[in-house]
Amino acid sequence: MAHINLPEGLPGISAGFAFRPETAGPMRALAQVLLHDPSSLTPGERELIATYVSSRNCTTFCVLSHGAAATAHLGDSAVVKQVQTDFTRAQISPKLKALLAIAGKVQQDGKLVTRADVEAAHKEGATDLEIHDTVLIAAAFCMYNRYVDGLGTWQPENSEMYTQMGRHLATEGYTTPSIRQPVGAA
Amino acid sequence: MAHINLPEGLPGISAGFAFRPETAGPMRALAQVLLHDPSSLTPGERELIATYVSSRNCTTFCVLSHGAAATAHLGDSAVVKQVQTDFTRAQISPKLKALLAIAGKVQQDGKLVTRADVEAAHKEGATDLEIHDTVLIAAAFCMYNRYVDGLGTWQPENSEMYTQMGRHLATEGYTTPSIRQPVGAA
Repeated sequence: MAHINLPEGLPGISAGFAFRPETAGPMRALAQVLLHDPSSLTPGERELIATYVSSRNCTTFCVLSHGAAATAHLGDSAVVKQVQTDFTRAQISPKLKALLAIAGKVQQDGKLVTRADVEAAHKEGATDLEIHDTVLIAAAFCMYNRYVDGLGTWQPENSEMYTQMGRHLATEGYTTPSIRQPVGAA
Repeated sequence: MAHINLPEGLPGISAGFAFRPETAGPMRALAQVLLHDPSSLTPGERELIATYVSSRNCTTFCVLSHGAAATAHLGDSAVVKQVQTDFTRAQISPKLKALLAIAGKVQQDGKLVTRADVEAAHKEGATDLEIHDTVLIAAAFCMYNRYVDGLGTWQPENSEMYTQMGRHLATEGYTTPSIRQPVGAA
């Protein structure tokens, strides 16, 4: 049971969004720009960054939902797991590895990012916009993760539910709720 | 100098906002709802929560700008300093102290918030909506702080600039830029 009286049957962040539509709007809009709208980083790459940061924050709901979205985009669940275990050995581009190194520092403390980290990303071909968005995806997931955890939301471990949610996020994006009805409702 | 090529002369988060208007929109809109729009928590109380979380994240720009906004609302800079040093001894309501205890836990990790923390806030008269917004203000400042720090933005220490910015935020809110021109520009 959540810490406050959230709508029942809604998993993770969906419950907070239903409780407070005024804050849900901008939070959804931010995710849409960062993860789904056109960008030189693919949606799959951006979902990998979100999954990686969420796994470092140990927020099950976000790891499983964004991991499922990354899998839906990339058609490869092994890389999604490998990024969480040790991204340096994952089958991803050197550029994405350099960006994940920056994201990992932002997850701890933005002040840990150095000029050398940014130069390493530039050297692998990352643009300033890609570095900006990486910093902000990592920072934003430090918000989403804390929101989900701090409210004590229900974080189901039903893998089929996450697969469906990931497919919905990958195709429809973030501005339309993936779960309009409580799970199990008509 | 910032880590990427941000517009020059804009302090702190303003530079990130000018660089990427697509993400600035929802980030400003979220701050507006959480800190400025009508709520049973006063704007001064909400700015104190933002200042406290920013001080725990050691993000100078956010501590000074939101501290100045809190001072503008409350007409009292001593309480703003005391909240950062030891909020349990500050001249604030027992309800706000209970909410700051929750915010401090969210700043570390949302999973640290317990049912007992929430019951303590309820006992001091906090509503579920106030607890929700406290969790989200704390979570959101873990984003804003990391964004400001992770981009290596310019964080001036000119106190008069922050006083002016605080007054602007307190009166105009978050959806209109407080700094339309680079500092020093015509």
